[in-house]
Amino acid sequence: LKSGSLRIVVLLKMVSIVLIGTGNVARHLYDAFRSTDFCNIIQVAGRNEHALNYFKPRTATSTNFRELADADIYIIALSDDAINTVSDNLIVKNKLVVHTSGSVPLTALPGTNRAGVLYPLQSFTREFPVNFKEVPICIEAGNRADIEILNKMASALSDRVYDISYEQRKSLHLAAVFVNNFTNHLYAIGEDICLENNLPFSILHPLIRETSRKIEHVSPKDAQTGPARRNDTGTMEKHLEELDNATRAEIYSLISKSIRETHGRGID
Amino acid sequence: LKSGSLRIVVLLKMVSIVLIGTGNVARHLYDAFRSTDFCNIIQVAGRNEHALNYFKPRTATSTNFRELADADIYIIALSDDAINTVSDNLIVKNKLVVHTSGSVPLTALPGTNRAGVLYPLQSFTREFPVNFKEVPICIEAGNRADIEILNKMASALSDRVYDISYEQRKSLHLAAVFVNNFTNHLYAIGEDICLENNLPFSILHPLIRETSRKIEHVSPKDAQTGPARRNDTGTMEKHLEELDNATRAEIYSLISKSIRETHGRGID
Repeated sequence: LKSGSLRIVVLLKMVSIVLIGTGNVARHLYDAFRSTDFCNIIQVAGRNEHALNYFKPRTATSTNFRELADADIYIIALSDDAINTVSDNLIVKNKLVVHTSGSVPLTALPGTNRAGVLYPLQSFTREFPVNFKEVPICIEAGNRADIEILNKMASALSDRVYDISYEQRKSLHLAAVFVNNFTNHLYAIGEDICLENNLPFSILHPLIRETSRKIEHVSPKDAQTGPARRNDTGTMEKHLEELDNATRAEIYSLISKSIRETHGRGID
Repeated sequence: LKSGSLRIVVLLKMVSIVLIGTGNVARHLYDAFRSTDFCNIIQVAGRNEHALNYFKPRTATSTNFRELADADIYIIALSDDAINTVSDNLIVKNKLVVHTSGSVPLTALPGTNRAGVLYPLQSFTREFPVNFKEVPICIEAGNRADIEILNKMASALSDRVYDISYEQRKSLHLAAVFVNNFTNHLYAIGEDICLENNLPFSILHPLIRETSRKIEHVSPKDAQTGPARRNDTGTMEKHLEELDNATRAEIYSLISKSIRETHGRGID
């Protein structure tokens, strides 16, 4: 066998996976892995008996973390707090143990195993399908061989795989809070203002779509418009008067201040 | 002639338009109107000689607001402040004079003419093409006949025409500041955090796209996720430590507070 052929043999070998967790991330990963030829989920473990029902028709399940199947890889798809607790009580040894969190270091995983991270940069909502091919997946591991395995797993799911450090991943998670969680909250405020004025929220959909689409072509700094950008104090004062919710008025003032700081007062 | 046929004759008659203004809104409206069979722009007027060059190859132009052509409709596509000044000095009488602002009342237009509003709810960036068919256009006028004319004009441009009051339009404009201007600023912060950590901003594009797409199917209030939503104080504290920019830390705290107020503390 030439090394090229050998490489193909290695690539084709399936890896067996035990998935620990039954929440949104676990479900979406489960569905995505099942559609690949490289990753075979042989067991799903979770404390919540009811949540395991989703997996039962197709995969062995367990509510007992002391009864995990023997597999190549263990994926802990749990909340940040639970990662520590569960990984401290893992009975497996010398396996690749992987968490899926944006803000937990590799070192949070037990030293008795090889540690890895497979962080899908997406906000998962139950029952809302995700096209995993477009989801960036950030990977990290303690050695080159494990990076290779995680790279193959992630590449089986997505076209966008990033091998980044813990510091980068943490920053990315923070950036994601701004562009996803906080942006979504601004949408919720927009919806409220519409409903309070007998307007359908759908009237804002094209603007929201356009705003998000534009920044794939123009830097958001260059795309900035609005009263704060052009330092239109008259309009800003009128808007503040109109906002009868104190927290929303604070948000309006603060983000307007931040826009003016970014672009300099009185420009435009 | 039956009334049905008469109606068709009325519908087919083109309206002539003088467009006052040469900025982004004027340009985009100009391009959009030119692709319709109903609206014929016969003149563009603006103080900025250079900006008129865009229109000159196809349409008569003037820098003198005292030399406006005779038309059915005059559209003032200028900034809020300029609307007052220009409309006070309009020489035309008994015409339909229309502004394009989200926050200026009908009464800001001169009483010697019939007043109207044609407000396209979109953020226009020069050189960034807009599909006008999807842009919501809000109209208002002082009488039913003018509403009909504006409705025909707006429907020639877009599939989404809304006949709404000044109060509603003002609120919509405020909501648009939250979901467009403020959201775009959060994108800019996300971009900064990426660049500071040697990550390409494009790594956030799929998440941004997904967040904006999701709320067309799920109310943003129901779609809310993130550390503030689940009251994950540990992660929030770590994020605040990581933010070395004081205004950004304030934004993080305030929007997190607002999310907790919306959803109730400790839920999830």
